[in-house]
Amino acid sequence: MKDETSDLSRPEAAEKAFYRAFAECDLRAMAAVWSDAPDAVCVHPGSPPVIGREAVLQSWSSMLEGAVMPNLRVVLLNRIRHEGLAVHLVEEHIADPDGHGGSTLVLATNVYRYEQDRWRLLGHHASVPAIADHPSLQ
Amino acid sequence: MKDETSDLSRPEAAEKAFYRAFAECDLRAMAAVWSDAPDAVCVHPGSPPVIGREAVLQSWSSMLEGAVMPNLRVVLLNRIRHEGLAVHLVEEHIADPDGHGGSTLVLATNVYRYEQDRWRLLGHHASVPAIADHPSLQ
Repeated sequence: MKDETSDLSRPEAAEKAFYRAFAECDLRAMAAVWSDAPDAVCVHPGSPPVIGREAVLQSWSSMLEGAVMPNLRVVLLNRIRHEGLAVHLVEEHIADPDGHGGSTLVLATNVYRYEQDRWRLLGHHASVPAIADHPSLQ
Repeated sequence: MKDETSDLSRPEAAEKAFYRAFAECDLRAMAAVWSDAPDAVCVHPGSPPVIGREAVLQSWSSMLEGAVMPNLRVVLLNRIRHEGLAVHLVEEHIADPDGHGGSTLVLATNVYRYEQDRWRLLGHHASVPAIADHPSLQ
């Protein structure tokens, strides 16, 4: 069976690969899913934007290196797709792996672009709504 | 001279029209710049997402109706464009019109789509970074 997270032939597969890299604190996989382009852009919750592949990957390195792998559940709320560009709005439910302490709800807008022969992550804007975690809107 | 904010022939013109509507608390102009599509989506700072044109316009109505027109300065930080879809990351510097009380910095990811004969706003994800307002990154 073909592994859809490795061929990245759909934006959904790139999204799955991105969140797997996030959940597993796997910087190599994170580097593989992000675009090489200079217009790659990332806004972590509450943080100023980082622009360009190198700065974006450095920001993920700072976040994930030595971190405890989180329990991460992702719910797709909205999907925009036109030609080789796709924009997804998702809820990220992030919890400690032991399941204690509740979870943090993050909203993220993810931008994917089809580059050469696969979809890659080009933009990530994440923010924490001023509300407690709640059941998914879906 | 052609008014570039009325023909919306470029995503930048749609962005200008959007922020003019915001700054002037003009709900009619706001309705004109937003897409009619069911995948229109809006995240106001600290708020849960609203999806679909009607809900999005209702959210702007709640924000702008009777509001004092803000002093709004917008700085484009990053631009992604592919075919008929464009994604801009901008800084919004929002202040009281009297110039007192400093300004609030908001980061926004705006998604524009070319629909029929013009660009329209299809997505807006805004958040407040946990830092004070600062000189533009540009």
